[in-house]
Amino acid sequence: MSDFGLKDAYVGILKGVIESIAPGTPVLDIAHDLPPFDRIHAGALLYQAYRFFPRKTIFVTVVDPGVGSERKPILVETENYFFVGPDNGVFTMVLAEEEVRRIFHLTNPNFFLPELSHTFHGRDIFAPVAAHLARGVDPARMGEEISDWVRLPEFSPGVGKDAIRGQVLSIDRFGNV
Amino acid sequence: MSDFGLKDAYVGILKGVIESIAPGTPVLDIAHDLPPFDRIHAGALLYQAYRFFPRKTIFVTVVDPGVGSERKPILVETENYFFVGPDNGVFTMVLAEEEVRRIFHLTNPNFFLPELSHTFHGRDIFAPVAAHLARGVDPARMGEEISDWVRLPEFSPGVGKDAIRGQVLSIDRFGNV
Amino acid sequence: MSDFGLKDAYVGILKGVIESIAPGTPVLDIAHDLPPFDRIHAGALLYQAYRFFPRKTIFVTVVDPGVGSERKPILVETENYFFVGPDNGVFTMVLAEEEVRRIFHLTNPNFFLPELSHTFHGRDIFAPVAAHLARGVDPARMGEEISDWVRLPEFSPGVGKDAIRGQVLSIDRFGNV
Repeated sequence: MSDFGLKDAYVGILKGVIESIAPGTPVLDIAHDLPPFDRIHAGALLYQAYRFFPRKTIFVTVVDPGVGSERKPILVETENYFFVGPDNGVFTMVLAEEEVRRIFHLTNPNFFLPELSHTFHGRDIFAPVAAHLARGVDPARMGEEISDWVRLPEFSPGVGKDAIRGQVLSIDRFGNV
Repeated sequence: MSDFGLKDAYVGILKGVIESIAPGTPVLDIAHDLPPFDRIHAGALLYQAYRFFPRKTIFVTVVDPGVGSERKPILVETENYFFVGPDNGVFTMVLAEEEVRRIFHLTNPNFFLPELSHTFHGRDIFAPVAAHLARGVDPARMGEEISDWVRLPEFSPGVGKDAIRGQVLSIDRFGNV
Repeated sequence: MSDFGLKDAYVGILKGVIESIAPGTPVLDIAHDLPPFDRIHAGALLYQAYRFFPRKTIFVTVVDPGVGSERKPILVETENYFFVGPDNGVFTMVLAEEEVRRIFHLTNPNFFLPELSHTFHGRDIFAPVAAHLARGVDPARMGEEISDWVRLPEFSPGVGKDAIRGQVLSIDRFGNV
């Protein structure tokens, strides 16, 4: 999933990269026409969707307001799945539920595209790493193990006397909040 | 095909369900950005498209203004294809052309997801049934055979002296009516 | 890639045609929600994307203001790839970079759908030709070899004293020009 939209070639480019490195790997789209840079919305959709995918699915999540900054590219291995993407909080909700096994800061350029851009880590880092992972490469070869990841601030829903307070994560096309 | 749109995770969730039950099954999208709840439009697009797919294709059509109501989930086996979806008239046009063999009211929860929601039969009933069918399960195990299905009212085109009367089924992006 | 948009069944129909002729062939979408009939924009996106796909990829590019006119349907074999589409200039940028081996005017109806329409060459010519090519048919059987193809007029960027002159090819959803 990404916030690349469907009017540009970016989603297709990621699929080309994956097919080049790991031919025949099934690639399923969750959604790409997401609000740009909105990690809360993207994280909520990922949370809603991920449990319906087979064990060992690799989720590539590219919604990244901080591309080009110091935020780390990471790979998280949980009991059931792999999550690849920017360490910007987008995984807050899924990792609160999944049992985390190992977290890696992706630093090994052997598993990236040869020429790195500053603004297209989806193509140059996340898609190639996911494809190498799909081929069976041990994530430990892809970077250094780290012990923590970025979390978005917790929202604390509350039930008062006359009000219920919460945070809207997303509103779907049918108006469901 | 569905009216789920491309901004939410619903299309991806259906693909995750299918891949979980029937790994490797090719899933082809006809279209998902359809007008919500418009069975006439969806039925016309399905009619336009279905004959270009291989024999034994399973068409999952989720455009369903009556989800949560009494309308039946059905599976229709024709001479050439399978159609899975709500019994709300969306299959009126294709079934007027295809030779119907058997119709089943989908009632066997063994072929649904374990927890049924009231509003997401695409995920909980139609996708799992289609995936089990793709694996070769006999539709007769999935529910009771019934003898009829819901048809939308026929529109009667007419040619008069000064006018031709018909019904617009859909207008495409190029303006073709 | 195409300018068919995502609200109609056309993209799905092309996939049905390909799956019918060449079952199991991986079909990757670059983008379909392109501005209708804009060959410069489509050509620029194809140019941006194609190098990230595996060698021998067949690019089906259907952006075609002249469908129904005299413009030729062509297949271009380069050192690395195949390009199938209308001879209307959409391949100008990629063919300026790729080493062209052979160009064919697609004229052999044995590799088309049986009934040709005047306005849907994507379905009737380009998708079937691509599918037969994917099955290993020699392009030489599909038409007559020709020696040239249509190019869009060259734009000549220039750097002056107070200005840089160029042509905007596309603007992406993030505002990148």
